[in-house]
Amino acid sequence: MIKEELFKRLTDKKDRIISIRRHLHEYPELSFHETNTSKYIQDFYKDKDCTVETYTGGNGVRVTIDSGKPGKTLAIRADFDALPITEETGLPFASKNKGVMHACGHDGHTAYMLILAETLIEMKDQLDGKIVVLHQPAEEVPPGGALQMIKDGALDGVDNVLGIHVMSTMDTGGVFYREGAIQTGRSYFKVTIHGKGGHGSSPHMANDAIVAASYFVTAVQTVVSRRLNPFDVGTVTIGSFDGKGQFNVIKDSVSLEGDVRAMTEETRTLIQTEITRILDGLQTMYGITYDLNYQNDYPVLMNDEKLTAFVSETLKEANINEVSEVTRCEPQPPSEDFAYYAEKLPSCFFYVGAKPANGNFYPHHHPKFDINEDCLLIAAKAMGAVVAEYLKGRAE
Amino acid sequence: MIKEELFKRLTDKKDRIISIRRHLHEYPELSFHETNTSKYIQDFYKDKDCTVETYTGGNGVRVTIDSGKPGKTLAIRADFDALPITEETGLPFASKNKGVMHACGHDGHTAYMLILAETLIEMKDQLDGKIVVLHQPAEEVPPGGALQMIKDGALDGVDNVLGIHVMSTMDTGGVFYREGAIQTGRSYFKVTIHGKGGHGSSPHMANDAIVAASYFVTAVQTVVSRRLNPFDVGTVTIGSFDGKGQFNVIKDSVSLEGDVRAMTEETRTLIQTEITRILDGLQTMYGITYDLNYQNDYPVLMNDEKLTAFVSETLKEANINEVSEVTRCEPQPPSEDFAYYAEKLPSCFFYVGAKPANGNFYPHHHPKFDINEDCLLIAAKAMGAVVAEYLKGRAE
Amino acid sequence: MIKEELFKRLTDKKDRIISIRRHLHEYPELSFHETNTSKYIQDFYKDKDCTVETYTGGNGVRVTIDSGKPGKTLAIRADFDALPITEETGLPFASKNKGVMHACGHDGHTAYMLILAETLIEMKDQLDGKIVVLHQPAEEVPPGGALQMIKDGALDGVDNVLGIHVMSTMDTGGVFYREGAIQTGRSYFKVTIHGKGGHGSSPHMANDAIVAASYFVTAVQTVVSRRLNPFDVGTVTIGSFDGKGQFNVIKDSVSLEGDVRAMTEETRTLIQTEITRILDGLQTMYGITYDLNYQNDYPVLMNDEKLTAFVSETLKEANINEVSEVTRCEPQPPSEDFAYYAEKLPSCFFYVGAKPANGNFYPHHHPKFDINEDCLLIAAKAMGAVVAEYLKGRAE
Amino acid sequence: MIKEELFKRLTDKKDRIISIRRHLHEYPELSFHETNTSKYIQDFYKDKDCTVETYTGGNGVRVTIDSGKPGKTLAIRADFDALPITEETGLPFASKNKGVMHACGHDGHTAYMLILAETLIEMKDQLDGKIVVLHQPAEEVPPGGALQMIKDGALDGVDNVLGIHVMSTMDTGGVFYREGAIQTGRSYFKVTIHGKGGHGSSPHMANDAIVAASYFVTAVQTVVSRRLNPFDVGTVTIGSFDGKGQFNVIKDSVSLEGDVRAMTEETRTLIQTEITRILDGLQTMYGITYDLNYQNDYPVLMNDEKLTAFVSETLKEANINEVSEVTRCEPQPPSEDFAYYAEKLPSCFFYVGAKPANGNFYPHHHPKFDINEDCLLIAAKAMGAVVAEYLKGRAE
Repeated sequence: MIKEELFKRLTDKKDRIISIRRHLHEYPELSFHETNTSKYIQDFYKDKDCTVETYTGGNGVRVTIDSGKPGKTLAIRADFDALPITEETGLPFASKNKGVMHACGHDGHTAYMLILAETLIEMKDQLDGKIVVLHQPAEEVPPGGALQMIKDGALDGVDNVLGIHVMSTMDTGGVFYREGAIQTGRSYFKVTIHGKGGHGSSPHMANDAIVAASYFVTAVQTVVSRRLNPFDVGTVTIGSFDGKGQFNVIKDSVSLEGDVRAMTEETRTLIQTEITRILDGLQTMYGITYDLNYQNDYPVLMNDEKLTAFVSETLKEANINEVSEVTRCEPQPPSEDFAYYAEKLPSCFFYVGAKPANGNFYPHHHPKFDINEDCLLIAAKAMGAVVAEYLKGRAE
Repeated sequence: MIKEELFKRLTDKKDRIISIRRHLHEYPELSFHETNTSKYIQDFYKDKDCTVETYTGGNGVRVTIDSGKPGKTLAIRADFDALPITEETGLPFASKNKGVMHACGHDGHTAYMLILAETLIEMKDQLDGKIVVLHQPAEEVPPGGALQMIKDGALDGVDNVLGIHVMSTMDTGGVFYREGAIQTGRSYFKVTIHGKGGHGSSPHMANDAIVAASYFVTAVQTVVSRRLNPFDVGTVTIGSFDGKGQFNVIKDSVSLEGDVRAMTEETRTLIQTEITRILDGLQTMYGITYDLNYQNDYPVLMNDEKLTAFVSETLKEANINEVSEVTRCEPQPPSEDFAYYAEKLPSCFFYVGAKPANGNFYPHHHPKFDINEDCLLIAAKAMGAVVAEYLKGRAE
Repeated sequence: MIKEELFKRLTDKKDRIISIRRHLHEYPELSFHETNTSKYIQDFYKDKDCTVETYTGGNGVRVTIDSGKPGKTLAIRADFDALPITEETGLPFASKNKGVMHACGHDGHTAYMLILAETLIEMKDQLDGKIVVLHQPAEEVPPGGALQMIKDGALDGVDNVLGIHVMSTMDTGGVFYREGAIQTGRSYFKVTIHGKGGHGSSPHMANDAIVAASYFVTAVQTVVSRRLNPFDVGTVTIGSFDGKGQFNVIKDSVSLEGDVRAMTEETRTLIQTEITRILDGLQTMYGITYDLNYQNDYPVLMNDEKLTAFVSETLKEANINEVSEVTRCEPQPPSEDFAYYAEKLPSCFFYVGAKPANGNFYPHHHPKFDINEDCLLIAAKAMGAVVAEYLKGRAE
Repeated sequence: MIKEELFKRLTDKKDRIISIRRHLHEYPELSFHETNTSKYIQDFYKDKDCTVETYTGGNGVRVTIDSGKPGKTLAIRADFDALPITEETGLPFASKNKGVMHACGHDGHTAYMLILAETLIEMKDQLDGKIVVLHQPAEEVPPGGALQMIKDGALDGVDNVLGIHVMSTMDTGGVFYREGAIQTGRSYFKVTIHGKGGHGSSPHMANDAIVAASYFVTAVQTVVSRRLNPFDVGTVTIGSFDGKGQFNVIKDSVSLEGDVRAMTEETRTLIQTEITRILDGLQTMYGITYDLNYQNDYPVLMNDEKLTAFVSETLKEANINEVSEVTRCEPQPPSEDFAYYAEKLPSCFFYVGAKPANGNFYPHHHPKFDINEDCLLIAAKAMGAVVAEYLKGRAE
């Protein structure tokens, strides 16, 4: 009954969801600099029957929808930052902020969430407990926005947390879930290798930092190839090798930045140990010194088994018109700062297919990334269905 | 007789040499942009009894001093460009052009040459033939200024060419020479390696250009270690590894710039062949593509045996007060575009010690590089002595 | 009823199983040279009510136990070759064949299988269909014994195949199963890299095969670290680098042998493509040539889903006294030529824990490898239970 | 007068020189095992007017020819060991000792020396002082025969030492000399790298010694490419990489043997320091341990300037019929244990061209190595001329 009404109301607002998404798409903002987007969100809730809190440590917005009745408190999260990418989609509503682009779908997350929240406010008398909407900034850049929001009290009083990611790589019409480890944990490191500069014609008077760093890159391949259990998951990427210089001057120092992924904390620790060991060896081998800044950022994202079962069963029974399948999927390679919520409280993060109708898709973070906007109504209905079921007291 | 008078006149002008050098030191200009320095030089010759020619292709100045009598024509060359280095000497006359510095002594070359030229003009009646003074720009940056000056006719009618470099690494009071190969030939290359970008967590979807380039750097070490005759001289330096990027994005392409030195053209060619072969192999090995810009620039600098013998004997017999030794030295690692003159005509390039009086010195191209200014008078007298001897018809 | 009797008979013969195992342990024979072991097996069946066939292509023995009644035919397989390892267990029944050792438990496989077969012959009137006992040689060395036995007709008329491996790494008392891919597929390769020999003091006259091969080893690490999907399983090991020579002679050629593992055929193919590509690149990069012998040998071992469910359920319901758990386990890294049977017919390979009672164990193929001999009765009962259930017609 | 007679006598014995050389060529013996060759040499001197001493520490023979008059003592040295090479020349007098070959010309050295010694004995009344003939074994294998002979007193009372090497790479008819450093110094090292063995499918349980050793080989290339002064001479060759094993077993340890050459002791020390540093770094980087046996063996061979001038002038003035040139040559890459004599006493080692008449030659240590036997008479006359001049008291 509740769900039917909720679905109907959402269906009626489909155009508004799309319109909000397009607006956000036109005005993307980089992580930790999403001031206007945050203001847009706050303005949306003006005059609505809810409590809006903002956080000093960033641009986060927490909206509490209180049914006035006792019950659980369920947090639902949508992120809203964009990426330093120059858009190449050619869409009529393409980014107007040069070099910045919503290439990961966070515009869609925010759009569906605003309309869903509005609708839940309209219908809150039919629910128990409270809904906490977490509009979270800075998912793309560690330390991420989630950690700060948690520190600022965003999870106070909350029992469980839910989140959705729209996926251009998954078929539109599908909703996908998996219990346990579903997204990798990540580490970031920056190492500066110090040799000694000199004239290109006299290598014996210098100590070539580019040579030492290049051997480091080749040595670091053995971490994955020889140190990891082949049945475990882990990667080490050197994404930045900053060694620009004069062609005829031996480089005195270079800086590398790396990205580590793992599906268990043990693997993440093993990789850190091995990278440090290789650098220690490099120091002796090439007579260099190094400064290392190694940070474990987003943890492995662990979906709570029980809550995930509740979510998947609810979705299967919800009979959402636009949903053609509710399927258990494989773990996803990227990392997510939603993982911090999941460390604190039993949580579930699930996926809504967003592949363009013609079947051709670009991966997330690509300059031509786009979504099938039909996914937005699906996301709203899927999240809405779970909220409705949960706040009728049947979960847990 | 002539030499004695020449030495006396130069000794009297020692302060002016130093004063000119300090002025030039304060206002250094980068290679190919030495407009003011060129103008300063041209102004110096105004109203003097000589012919001044400038070249459209750059800032070069050619000054002809004609004795009016038949005889040979001897070119003497001084370079005048500076380097993109931020001076750290703390000298009262330190560079006023931020980020630019005379850190190779070309200010001194120009200063002694102007005063020597002035003096030779004064004394030209005592000489035969002609003196051509080559004030050459852009020695520091290939393709260099020499090549263009030659193309523009700077060597027309010239029989031989002489040049001096002041050396902070050699004792002041010494003049040094060597026949045959005395400075390395050089090549420059820039290679851009193209892989395929992607997300750090999914290496199998990308092709990591940083990894391929790092293996290239390690492979290129074998050119010197395994391909060169151990009795030959050669180096390969990768001075620039431009691979700055996002830590968590697999880099799609990186650019390397390299510097090659050799003491024979055969070795220079061998190194080019091997680097190209390694890149071809890399292409297959890592599935990358590459663009290579490989340029042989300054050739091996070959001092003519006979002319060098003439120079060294003349210097030994000249009994210059300030000169304590005239010594055969080892070849020098850097390259010099004086080599282009030596390709065209029998030439001799020699060295004047410029080590500071306290014995502490910084190498050329160092932000604290400095010279003992006593070297300037020595350079003027040494070059003057050779010119005087040569234009009395005894050379060749 | 049948199972109870079977278990009782086997319990009574426990000492004989152990005694046979110890005898085989004392006289291990290398793969493809197991003549005496094969004869021992054949002698065992002399005067027993069964058909014994041997194969010309090796030392394999196929024993058919015919109930005389219609029904299915179930093959059960035990391997019997040993390894080129010098035993260091200090056991009273340690290997008497120097340098050869049953370090993988195949002695135990054969021992339990002989006594189980004897017992099934005794009880065959209580069963339907036929049992085919496959005593297979040469599991340890590709191409393995299974392939030849299949070619020789060992699977003729058979419906399904079962096999057991005792595992020193798993707790005694446990039986372990998994459907789908359970052991890796494997490739073998041998590559000879040809350079050009020469005197150590003149590298430029030679082409150092050790240097080229070493760079190959470092490059090949990228196959696992950068080419594989991090969620897939694959390894590349260079187990042999045969480059022994004179210290002062540049090596003209070296031979490497490698081992590849993968959990899907796609990954196995990908690795082969990448290794070949690296060698092609190496050829150009270092001017070497190479001969490559690349063989995909044992495939990924795929347990049939339905048959594995039958096996696991039967084992759970069998209530074997000595069995404390029947548990789904993780895939195992090694490869098995049982995989060839599983390619032909729906098959199931499962594991019986054999960890020594004190909890200290050595991995398979270790010179101190040993098993808890209690595992042998468990293997006999577990396999016996499945056979009994299957030949009462309930399987499939 | 003396020289004319000496030349005449030697010319008359040319066939005997060749005949002895061919005999020795047929029966080559390995370093430190030249028992029969030594006996052959000793037998040659039986009943001749000289003193023959042998050394317990090897197969060396010292023959003293005493003129009975006061004067200097000049040692002349010829080595007589062969190489572990299977001859492929097809000569009628090819090696009868399978796998052993005189592929470096020591057979020729001994042949000319025996006949020269015989002749000098015949003519000793015409000379002053003493001649010490050093028939030295084991030049090819460190620690070499020279060191032991010196320890045994072979240089007692000697003033200077001379030696000749016949060179298949230099034109027959030429005699070649050079003062100062003329052959490289050498080091030998053997390093065993210990990892941890394991199964190829489980690299994380092992520590792959082949991988660590391969990275070592790539890292060691930087010693020559980046640590040496490009104007110095040095090589590092890994001549042996002993890592043969099972393709599917991760290797627990491998042994490498290396050869180092340098033209100064400073460079030799620098290389040792760098190799040790790389191994120390490798230890940390890959978690391996290593055993290193590093030995500096033959030093840089330094020809005494004054003595070499005496030798070259004497040779130029000697007007030996068969000698077409006496020329200053380049340093030679190989090492020589004659260097030990030169460390003790002013010495001179020079070269006699031995290129086959048709101009086609194989390098020393090649299975098809051969000499133009005309070189033997030249060697006898050249050495004879220097001895005759020296012992008339004109040297020093």
